[in-house]
Order: sequence, then C-alpha cells, then structure tokens
Amino acid sequence: MYLSKYFLPILKENPSEAQITSHRLMLRSGMIKQSSAGIYSWLPLGLKVLKKIESIVIEEQIAAGHIPILMPTIQSAELWRESKRLDDYGKEMLRFEDRHGRLMLYGPTNEELVTDIFRSFISSYKDLPKTLFHIQWKFRDEVRPRFGVMRGREFFMKDGYSFDIDKKSAIHAYNRHMISYLKTYERLGLKAIPMKADTGPIGGDYSHEFLVLASTGESQVFYDSNISDLSLGDNHIEYDNSSNLKSIVNKFTTPYARTDETHDVTLFEKIPENRRMSGRGIEVGQIFYFGTKYSESMGAKIDLPNGKRIPVEMGSHGIGVSRLVGALIEANHDQHGIIWPKAVSPFDAVIINLKQNDKKCHEISIKIYDILKVNGFDILYDDRFESVGAKFSSIDLIGIPIQIIVGPRGLSEGILEIKSRKDGIRKNIPLSENFLELINAIKI
Amino acid sequence: MYLSKYFLPILKENPSEAQITSHRLMLRSGMIKQSSAGIYSWLPLGLKVLKKIESIVIEEQIAAGHIPILMPTIQSAELWRESKRLDDYGKEMLRFEDRHGRLMLYGPTNEELVTDIFRSFISSYKDLPKTLFHIQWKFRDEVRPRFGVMRGREFFMKDGYSFDIDKKSAIHAYNRHMISYLKTYERLGLKAIPMKADTGPIGGDYSHEFLVLASTGESQVFYDSNISDLSLGDNHIEYDNSSNLKSIVNKFTTPYARTDETHDVTLFEKIPENRRMSGRGIEVGQIFYFGTKYSESMGAKIDLPNGKRIPVEMGSHGIGVSRLVGALIEANHDQHGIIWPKAVSPFDAVIINLKQNDKKCHEISIKIYDILKVNGFDILYDDRFESVGAKFSSIDLIGIPIQIIVGPRGLSEGILEIKSRKDGIRKNIPLSENFLELINAIKI
Repeated sequence: MYLSKYFLPILKENPSEAQITSHRLMLRSGMIKQSSAGIYSWLPLGLKVLKKIESIVIEEQIAAGHIPILMPTIQSAELWRESKRLDDYGKEMLRFEDRHGRLMLYGPTNEELVTDIFRSFISSYKDLPKTLFHIQWKFRDEVRPRFGVMRGREFFMKDGYSFDIDKKSAIHAYNRHMISYLKTYERLGLKAIPMKADTGPIGGDYSHEFLVLASTGESQVFYDSNISDLSLGDNHIEYDNSSNLKSIVNKFTTPYARTDETHDVTLFEKIPENRRMSGRGIEVGQIFYFGTKYSESMGAKIDLPNGKRIPVEMGSHGIGVSRLVGALIEANHDQHGIIWPKAVSPFDAVIINLKQNDKKCHEISIKIYDILKVNGFDILYDDRFESVGAKFSSIDLIGIPIQIIVGPRGLSEGILEIKSRKDGIRKNIPLSENFLELINAIKI
Repeated sequence: MYLSKYFLPILKENPSEAQITSHRLMLRSGMIKQSSAGIYSWLPLGLKVLKKIESIVIEEQIAAGHIPILMPTIQSAELWRESKRLDDYGKEMLRFEDRHGRLMLYGPTNEELVTDIFRSFISSYKDLPKTLFHIQWKFRDEVRPRFGVMRGREFFMKDGYSFDIDKKSAIHAYNRHMISYLKTYERLGLKAIPMKADTGPIGGDYSHEFLVLASTGESQVFYDSNISDLSLGDNHIEYDNSSNLKSIVNKFTTPYARTDETHDVTLFEKIPENRRMSGRGIEVGQIFYFGTKYSESMGAKIDLPNGKRIPVEMGSHGIGVSRLVGALIEANHDQHGIIWPKAVSPFDAVIINLKQNDKKCHEISIKIYDILKVNGFDILYDDRFESVGAKFSSIDLIGIPIQIIVGPRGLSEGILEIKSRKDGIRKNIPLSENFLELINAIKI
C-alpha cells in the first residue's frame, strides 16, 4: 500500500479524551475514530490488526476441534425470560421494542441463543461432545464507557459454548478452552495468566480469567512468580487427550494467581516472599463451567445410552477480540508509539523514502515494494512529501516492526538501512538485483 | 471435517414457513436457523458459504483500489439529524434510547457515519480520490420479513462510499464500482444484469441495480437479450484507466435493461421483438451517484488547488452479502437440492462411505481424506452410519460439487467413483497409492 493512497489519519496532538496509553495511541495512529460514547469506527490500520487477531483466534479454536457458527446481534427477549436472566444485566443490556412491540435486545452474550440452537437439533449423547463458537459484535451499555476499545459499548468478542454428556467431559472442554486460549495469547505475543475468577452473571461452578500484566490494568492481581515462566511453546497439543490436557492445565493453575475479587491473603502468604508478586492486569478472556444452569431452565436435554434423559452439561468461554487490540498496545509500546508483535502487525514492513522528490530513491523504493509484494509480504510505502523527521516519527508511532530506509546517501554507497522498531537497531543491507538479503532480513 | 463430528442438522421434512426454494433449502440443509422473525443464526455450513462470498467481495473491492474500514452497527441519531434523513426510513429504522436517554439507531446504511469520518480527517484535494468500504451487519425492521435471508431484518452487507474532487472523477468511481461488482458476480458464478434504477431514500442523480434472473425474484425485469451474452471474463481490469472503464460500462449499460420501477414501454418496444425479454429478478446490489447530497448538509468540504472550498462529490455502493447466499441457491439448484458453484461451495468435495462398518471402506476413506487435505482441499467425510439412500439424498441436498463414492464393490474392483453434483455424471477412478488421478479430477 502506498501511504499517499491509503487512509491513515495520524494525529499530531495527543487527544485530550484518552486517559490510557492504548486509547491515546490508537487515536493518534489513526486506527479508530469514536463515533459516539464507547462506540468506534475501525479505520484501515486498526481493522487490519483486529482481523489478524480474529484469524488467530479462529485458527486456534478450530485446532481445538471447535465449530464456527454465527449468531445474530439482535435477540428476542423471550429466550432470556426462559433462562430467567432478563433482569440480571440490568441497564447494561440494551433493550428495545421492534415495530410490532416485541421486546428485543442487543446480545451482550449468547448462552440463551446457543442453548436454543442446541435443543432444536441435538438430543442424543451420540452427537456429543460439541463446542460451537462465534465471533460477533456485542453491546453492553456501560454507564461510563472509557479507555477506548478496552471498555467500549459495542465490542467484538469470540464466545464459545461447550455441550457435554457429563461433568468429566465438560471439564475436558474447559481444559481444552484454557489451553487453546493460552496458545492464542502466546501466538499474539502476549503473556496472559489464568487466574481463578468469580462467575458473575454468567453463573457457574468455576471460572478462570486471563490477565495480561500492564500498569494500566483495571484489576489488581496477585501471583506466584513461578507462573510467569510457564509457556506452551511450539508443542503440538493433542486436544482429544484429556489426561494430557489435564496435566498442562494443572501446571498453569497450581501456582497462586488471583485477582482482587478472589484474592486470599492467607494462601498468598504461604508463597515464599521473593515469589509473591502483585500488580495490575487487563482481563482478555474468561472461561466458565456452569453445568446445567441453562440446559435445565431451557430444557436442553439429551438421551443417554441407558434411556435416561438429562440436561446437557455446558460451559462458555470468551475472548475479547477488540479489547485485545488495546491490551496488545498496553503491553507493547514505548515513548515513540506502538511496537506491534509480528503476528498482528498491520504490515510486515514499511519502506521509508527519505527524499520523495529524488527520482532514484522513488524508483528503488518501488522496486523493493514490488519484489517484497511478489514474495508475499504486505508492505506499506511511505511516499509522502514530508520531512525526514515527520516520516520517522509517524512511522515509529504506527509500530510496524521493520522499517526499510531508502535515502540518497545510502543509495550512493549502494546500501539500504533496515531498522528494528523494537530495539531501534539499524543494519545496512547492500543493494542487490534480487534483494535476497533484504527478503531474508524481513523473514526472520 | 468428519460429518459425525460436525454440526450439520439436516431436516427431513420441508419446513412449512419457507415460501421460496432458497429459504427451504437453507433450512433443510442446516445452513441457518431462525432465531426470531427475519433474524437468523448461521450454522456451520451456511457460515462457510457466507464467508466465501465475503472474501470474494473484499478481494474485488481491494483490486479496485477501495480501502476497507469497519463502522459500528449502532449509530447516534445526531448525524442523521444533520443530514435530515432521520425520518426518511420511517419505522424500518430501528431506534432506541440508550441508558442516558440519547437517541440511537441500528444502522440500515452508513452515508452519515462515513461522511463524518471523511470530514474529520480529509480536507484537501490532494487526498482524493478515496473510496472506503465496509462489510457489516445492518438492520431494517421490515414489517413482514420473509424469504429467509433474502428479506430478513438483520443482514450482512458490503457498502462502499466514494469521495471525489468533481463529477467526472465521481463518475469514474461509479464505473469502478459497477465493474468491480460485475466481476464479483461473475466470480460467484452468478449472471447479474445492471439495470437503471430509482434512487429511493439514498437519493442521488443516477443509480443501477444488479439483478439475478430467477423465477422467485421480487422484481419484474425487462431487458434486451443482447445483454445476457456480455461478460468480463478473465480480462485484467485497469481500474485507474477511466476511458477504458467507461467503454466497458457503456457496453453493459447500452442494451435496454430495467426493472418495473423504471420500465419505459416505448423504449422497450424499439428493441427487435425476438430480443425483448421479461422475467423476474433478485436484486443483489445497487450503486448510486448522488453528488453533494450529504457533503453539503454535513459540511464535508475540500480545498481545491485554486483555494476554493467545495463540498466533496460522493457515491455509495452496496452488495447484499447474506442475500447473495439466497440468490445463489435460487440460481443453482435442482429437485434434489443445492448445487454450489465451485467458488462458494462450503467444501471442495465430499467423501461418501457407502458401508460405514466395512473396515476397508473406512480406511480408504480416511486415506483419501488425509491425502486431499494435505493437498489443500477442504473435504467433508460422510462417516455416518446411515443407509446408502439417506447418505445420497442428504449429500445431494447440501450441494457440494464433487462426491467421492467409496463402496465395497468398487474397492474390490480397485476403483472409486466420483460424481459431479451438477450433471450427475459418474466416473470411475482407479485406486492408486498417491491418488493423483483423484486429485486432478477435483482440481478441474
């Protein structure tokens, strides 16, 4: 993409309404525009990041054996009367009457709708286990929306629902979700810690939240430093192997890790003092096992081999996709702007032409652009007629991991420069016909 | 995907609420489930088709140089007061107050919101031309939703908005959209005819609708048979070449083609009688040029090189993505069910195991499945313990273009059978170690 033809409205000034870094940087780098309180339009750069996160979330859910569907944003209130949850959300749930006077609502979550789908079609143990998930816009009419996409009103979320024959199988689904979420966060370049959580209006027996450590987080968190060292790495996960999954989950849930809501001082103080950590965290996901809470009230039953008919065991599992954009920035920035982890960067690299009206600089830039494109990279070319300073500062702001710097002095010496956004390290790359060295430098 | 692990709730009976073929077939093949009047959940098979259509629409918009953004579903009514359109949509526009008593609405279209984005960031001729598009859920509170996803209340639509310096450039944007839409329909395997249209509540100077011929269409259409022969084919389109585009558009818009809304009997009767065609059509897209209708009322102005400041020239352009799923089925089915065009088929091929409890049949089926998967194909394996008849009828119903039939008799003779869903032609393929012949047969 040539920047001159793109739509990247970078702000020079810090927007006064932004209280936290991610909000400020998203507005400044032209990723979003507020359209009304807590409701945002995603501009091209922001949308690219949102879509990359969405793709990774989908891939990891499918890898775990979960099946994508898509439920609508608008629901009838009828189902919520059945589950007796219509009033649980209070004013946060956006309600309205349609033209025929029927009470409708903008879904804040989908337990009712998915349970209705399940009971309409599935009635035998033979069709279980089954996990259905979707990624859809949701609405919570927050009384005081703030922190940009971190606590907006209209937000994009993955929510999955597991259906199982018994508690044992439901716990396996719970573990599957925990691991698929950990895997997702790792792929996004985020360190998220599963913490014992309250269940809130979803209800249920137990629940974990996933928190990313960041000083701007809304939750106080307490944890054993041992948990920070854990990672799944590149290990292939056998999602059907329940004992294997259980042992991974045990590893991640044994060290103490809780938010202020579930914090237990006595337990915490049993950890050796040098491992006792506390800080702030951003919630980026939550999983629930709630058994038959919805299947009982809504009559979602299954026939067992022995002829008995029982309510299906359920759980629900959510990742805030739009919120993750903010969380990623909170965890990856410096004083100059965003530093995107490679997996979610809106572009693979950016070409900065230091002298736009220099014919050779432009020609070489285009040549590099075309070659990198042919090699499958998504490249931004900063072809604006701006000062070198303005180019560097706006390109640092938008956080693309690799900058390819094309300038007249370098070209006269037969070199390009590449700069790593993260550590600022610059490296010379000799100009060559096929740019093989450049291609390899970007691949790393 | 193994069918036994999938979620494909096929209905044996014709649902009584479905008045038209596509609605009936989408319900029967487990693509959608109604959640309330005119509002649907997309089940796995339906979602796959919806996503394939969405991808093709996005690719063709990007090829035309248009830039993806994403606007929210919920809008403030304020902007609609500015454009003086708040009452134009009447009861079809879903309105409600948020918890602070502010009037909000579920966007039926986005001229106001995108004009607000434009005016917030762009003020110079140097940044034009620019076309921003998005694909987002919309809501129209139809008094009598019907025909399934063809006339639902919550629907998925691509809408694009062009911003240009003058009328000439705006007409070029109009032509770009017309051709990118024709290209999109062709890739989807649809024959859609551009017809002169009324502008309705969008307003504007001129407009074309795109209609797919189908006996269940809601519009009466009249056209010169010459237009049926036109196609873009595989020609590369140079979207920046305005005279080239203009000549293509002329070719497609010169033959008479109108809906009952714009039909002109006198003009129609000037066509030689043997070329005068009439029938029913389904609207699958519409493009508008409306000049300064919104930019004037909302103050979206640009500075010209001569120092003057004028309202920007605009157009808007829509393709109904969810509606296209229905239109595709109306145009591609027989008495046995759906026949997906290859480009949008939910799976590339399906393996039908005729004898599930035969060890060899199952082993060979899995082997084929694995080999095809490694070769990049998306395959459904019908591993249900069902009768041959039940398998054939449900697989015919869901319309996957290629069926690979694995049965004990064939295997004993060293052959597989492949059947083309469209024409029913069966062909024997010799079993081999690497299944090369099978792979080539699917590639075609």
